[in-house]
Amino acid sequence: MTRLSEDDMLERIRARFRTSGTPVGPGDDAAVLDPPGCRVASTDVLVEGIDFTGAIPARFVGWKSLAANLSDIAAMGARTRAFLLTLGLADGAEATLDDLVGGMADLADEEGIALAGGDLSSSPTTFISITTLGDLAADSPLERSGARPGDRIYVSRPLGGSAAGLALLRQGWVLRPDGSVVPPESIAERASFPLRELAGSAVRQHAMPTAETTLGPMLAERNLATACIDVSDGLSTDLARLCRASGCGAIIEFLRIPPFPDLPEHAVALGLDARSVVLHGGEEYALLFTSSKRESELSGMLGRPVYAIGRIVAGEGIVLETDDGSARLEPAGFDHFAR
Amino acid sequence: MTRLSEDDMLERIRARFRTSGTPVGPGDDAAVLDPPGCRVASTDVLVEGIDFTGAIPARFVGWKSLAANLSDIAAMGARTRAFLLTLGLADGAEATLDDLVGGMADLADEEGIALAGGDLSSSPTTFISITTLGDLAADSPLERSGARPGDRIYVSRPLGGSAAGLALLRQGWVLRPDGSVVPPESIAERASFPLRELAGSAVRQHAMPTAETTLGPMLAERNLATACIDVSDGLSTDLARLCRASGCGAIIEFLRIPPFPDLPEHAVALGLDARSVVLHGGEEYALLFTSSKRESELSGMLGRPVYAIGRIVAGEGIVLETDDGSARLEPAGFDHFAR
Repeated sequence: MTRLSEDDMLERIRARFRTSGTPVGPGDDAAVLDPPGCRVASTDVLVEGIDFTGAIPARFVGWKSLAANLSDIAAMGARTRAFLLTLGLADGAEATLDDLVGGMADLADEEGIALAGGDLSSSPTTFISITTLGDLAADSPLERSGARPGDRIYVSRPLGGSAAGLALLRQGWVLRPDGSVVPPESIAERASFPLRELAGSAVRQHAMPTAETTLGPMLAERNLATACIDVSDGLSTDLARLCRASGCGAIIEFLRIPPFPDLPEHAVALGLDARSVVLHGGEEYALLFTSSKRESELSGMLGRPVYAIGRIVAGEGIVLETDDGSARLEPAGFDHFAR
Repeated sequence: MTRLSEDDMLERIRARFRTSGTPVGPGDDAAVLDPPGCRVASTDVLVEGIDFTGAIPARFVGWKSLAANLSDIAAMGARTRAFLLTLGLADGAEATLDDLVGGMADLADEEGIALAGGDLSSSPTTFISITTLGDLAADSPLERSGARPGDRIYVSRPLGGSAAGLALLRQGWVLRPDGSVVPPESIAERASFPLRELAGSAVRQHAMPTAETTLGPMLAERNLATACIDVSDGLSTDLARLCRASGCGAIIEFLRIPPFPDLPEHAVALGLDARSVVLHGGEEYALLFTSSKRESELSGMLGRPVYAIGRIVAGEGIVLETDDGSARLEPAGFDHFAR
């Protein structure tokens, strides 16, 4: 195979994305956006071996890396307009460049987002660094710091699927490029249909997550949330961040946290700790937000379910209420430097 | 040494930068900029072992990585307002984090640029990915594509220092954290004072470059340039890009290209090919631009020297005129994937 030059690779990447909304797009020293420009910016990096492995086909890695960034912008009550893509490519990674970029382009198309620019470098380790630029949906952003005692705490969808999917990949379940998921040979015979179904949805939830790109801006536009963050490092960690930023504490009820469908029933058979993946599992990209509205009222106004899991209280720290009583919940989500 | 957590490292990084101009700065899901936001965005990545090595102390790596990005924004006729910083840190890189961030903060302070956000990850390879956000100085940006036959071609300052400095580092010259440069032991005795002086300025030019953050916006505001690019991959490569984008060719005169001071006199003694570093040396961050104005007129209007090195012609490709006659100049600068 002839090695591609940097300019060739840039051409191939550019060809996959729309660039409207950027009068000067990729290919000049910098991108220029249509007036009035963007007020919201976020950046996120995925490193091979740390944030993804060969167990995840390249198109899913591409999709997911953009989804994580869209989630950050959505959590501010903003809409992503454009993004910049930086790739560090290890030897051999060029072979999967089209798949990686293709997965990203599928999501960018779906969300109507333009590629504004980027950079390429060869690198001993493959990594993907994305910066997203967006517009506020309202005059003010949704910040982490706006929660007040008495507010209800919401999650936008069931939790635990992504961490369960990751655990299954580590156990040897295989995600194929076509999205099908197959069990490891050792358990293939005793993997029941419902088990396979759950494993398949959990692995796809991990590999091809969606961001709450409609809900975030809607919460901001209608002024329905007092604070908001996305669940990227796990509920326990991200709720602790929201509480710390807001200068308050929280009480949540385990039984009110919606688990990923069928997870509690089959967790043991799959060797998973359902409680741990729900409370601490990262890369969910659900929104975690606070609101003075009740659950039924809020779901009605939004035209979709959201789940009240507890309330904000004065003080600090998080208390978790379960059938066995109350206990302090410590952040136990993902810290990139704590392994 | 206790390992720092991600949040601890983020705190230490944030503490070094100003965040004004960003009502929501680092620490939330995304940054929010003061109205009207930014219309210009650029991104650039440096990878350890590819773009920098242990031969360059961390504070210079930090400075340089931001300078490269400021140069891209300046080349668009824009001013950088804020930046996002993504770091992939290999084991041990935490020890130099303060120096790396300190060098970057020195330049950010000097240029009045706020840190808007960022991301941290552990990584097998250390890398620095920066996205800069800026404002146009005029209604229209300076693009690569505006050069027309008859325009004069300018460089904003002497060339070749950075590539000479890199070559000297590879020969064993040492750049110390305090900025002093010492010869390798093998030649220490015969390295004359002028030679050491030149080596010192060249190595510092390589490690601590400045971007044309005043000139770029000035050219745009006063409508003095028809096209502009920064010399990041070498004059031959970047001029070829400008010509290709503009659909024209160029004739340049070697004797009119200003070489880095004292380089021609001492190149041989230092084992350098002066002509090659001037024509093809990258990471200069000079501006390369075209204008219909004459050199004396333009330098007068700008209140600083700029150097006419040739002219834009119809057709394609670059012709280099020397004492020995004319020859085609092929791009021979840095391609990240052509080693």
